[in-house]
Amino acid sequence: MRIAVDAMGSDRAPAVEVEGAVGALLDREDLTVVLVGDRSAIEAELARHPGAPLGRIEVVEAADVIEPGEAPVPAIRRKPNSSIVIGTRLVKAGEADAFLSAGSTGAVMAAAHLILRPLPGVDRPAVGAALPAETGRFLLIDMGANVDTRPLHLLQFAHLGTIYAQDLMRIPNPRVGLLNIGHEPEKGDEQTLETHQLLKRSSTLNFIGNVEGRDVLRGVCDVLVCDGFVGNVMLKFYESMAGVIARLLKVEMEEQGVTLDLGRLFRRLDYSTYGGAPLLGVNGVVIIAHGGSPPAAIRNGIGVAAQSVETGMVEHIAGRLAHLAESSEET
Amino acid sequence: MRIAVDAMGSDRAPAVEVEGAVGALLDREDLTVVLVGDRSAIEAELARHPGAPLGRIEVVEAADVIEPGEAPVPAIRRKPNSSIVIGTRLVKAGEADAFLSAGSTGAVMAAAHLILRPLPGVDRPAVGAALPAETGRFLLIDMGANVDTRPLHLLQFAHLGTIYAQDLMRIPNPRVGLLNIGHEPEKGDEQTLETHQLLKRSSTLNFIGNVEGRDVLRGVCDVLVCDGFVGNVMLKFYESMAGVIARLLKVEMEEQGVTLDLGRLFRRLDYSTYGGAPLLGVNGVVIIAHGGSPPAAIRNGIGVAAQSVETGMVEHIAGRLAHLAESSEET
Repeated sequence: MRIAVDAMGSDRAPAVEVEGAVGALLDREDLTVVLVGDRSAIEAELARHPGAPLGRIEVVEAADVIEPGEAPVPAIRRKPNSSIVIGTRLVKAGEADAFLSAGSTGAVMAAAHLILRPLPGVDRPAVGAALPAETGRFLLIDMGANVDTRPLHLLQFAHLGTIYAQDLMRIPNPRVGLLNIGHEPEKGDEQTLETHQLLKRSSTLNFIGNVEGRDVLRGVCDVLVCDGFVGNVMLKFYESMAGVIARLLKVEMEEQGVTLDLGRLFRRLDYSTYGGAPLLGVNGVVIIAHGGSPPAAIRNGIGVAAQSVETGMVEHIAGRLAHLAESSEET
Repeated sequence: MRIAVDAMGSDRAPAVEVEGAVGALLDREDLTVVLVGDRSAIEAELARHPGAPLGRIEVVEAADVIEPGEAPVPAIRRKPNSSIVIGTRLVKAGEADAFLSAGSTGAVMAAAHLILRPLPGVDRPAVGAALPAETGRFLLIDMGANVDTRPLHLLQFAHLGTIYAQDLMRIPNPRVGLLNIGHEPEKGDEQTLETHQLLKRSSTLNFIGNVEGRDVLRGVCDVLVCDGFVGNVMLKFYESMAGVIARLLKVEMEEQGVTLDLGRLFRRLDYSTYGGAPLLGVNGVVIIAHGGSPPAAIRNGIGVAAQSVETGMVEHIAGRLAHLAESSEET
């Protein structure tokens, strides 16, 4: 299996990507990683890993990099030699089975949309984030790729997330929750009221009802459906909490003269270590990693990409969404 | 000054309300508290506080209670003798200067809307929550009273919040932020894009721009404006974090054989102790306390109500919003 990795995407590229790729190759002997980016920078990093299985590492030159601030669609068009465009094209051409990037989320989305294309029946590909709950994990979908969504889009997100949870989280019948401001079906804004009814009417979803903000971390569902606006706000808020608590705890420890090792706790809460966010609903496996990813996140992300390929996730999504578009469920 | 308190609203009513009221009366000698509810239950609780200044405590009988699950508007109409309706009517009649309730937020909102009425220029009264940031506090507005808001409503929330921050948080020129999914003015959904422009054009607001989820707790603004849907999700998520972290920390402390007193830290993060959420934009001072409020929250909430009265907050809001409605700012 061949996984293309954008070597230029993260805040500490290409060091983090190269180290992560070497780790992933040691995890699985059936993998080849195609590092896409500045060849000399990549090779300089590779030289720092004498144990790297060079026979399973290829480098594909990409002269350009799309910067975080660039408007995605124009950037994709203007920079055909960027690592994001070339990596995505490798998947399109069948020269790679999946693509992982820690670069601009918008640009990765746009490249996947323009080059790989959405699957039939998918109006809006969505980005999920497998977040830690108090026990286990849940997939938040959408985490920010789509704003101004309609109820039909959220219904599609529920199906996309269900298949991800089945194939990647190995949950046979994932519980789907709708992020909302109250438990009762009659609570919500216009969008969630209508979405609730769509989800409830679905014969193929295991819909458990509305999930309030306070229940998100209790692990009450496996797939949590929401518009990308609220998903993005909540995800970023969540990310910031660990740092706030850590700083407040540091003060307490100093004042009380007590030392508590918080490493494991904060690793648990740090979703970026879980290996990237899947872009679901396009015709190919694409994993978006956090710009601040450590090597372990890239390593895990490559593992998630490989697992997505071998479980046939894209084919499962294609079958389910095409069926959904033909059925009366959505109307 | 006379503050009416719904004695029947909280999860542990009337014990919590009576204890909180006694505390508030000891804090300020110029207060009288009017406890509204089941007279015999209230008097039984009062008997447990031998130091209570009975000369400044009145009891007004209310035979009914609106339960948390009831649909607000029908409940207000069906239960004219409920503590929420009677307490609100005391303000309307000038027999109390303010009303505090830890009962159903929806019912308190509905009663204020129907009995006190929104101020001219206020399309949607909003509920703020003064939340702790890493340093200081900020007012989140709206925290859940209004969903499906339009940009003009969010502009009004910004003005309501600004006046609250001036009068109650004593910040002369409060920084107003717009909760959004990116810093850049061109980021957001349709609503926040348009709201950003409205806020930017305002000559009377100190608008600092978009605030992302990750910056909320950094204390970058004094007033954080958002639709009630996302505000409610984020607030409830925030509320739940402390418990999650506390349970995870307990495990770490046990396994590492270390004891760290977390009381102060969690009191810092517990916004309910800050004294209730102001309902802003109606013709009267109304404070909504959390159903799970401890006595200290009721005590602080009564203090906030008193401060709102003495600063003339309602008059300030009336002046500002009437002016806004007449000016061209909103169009």
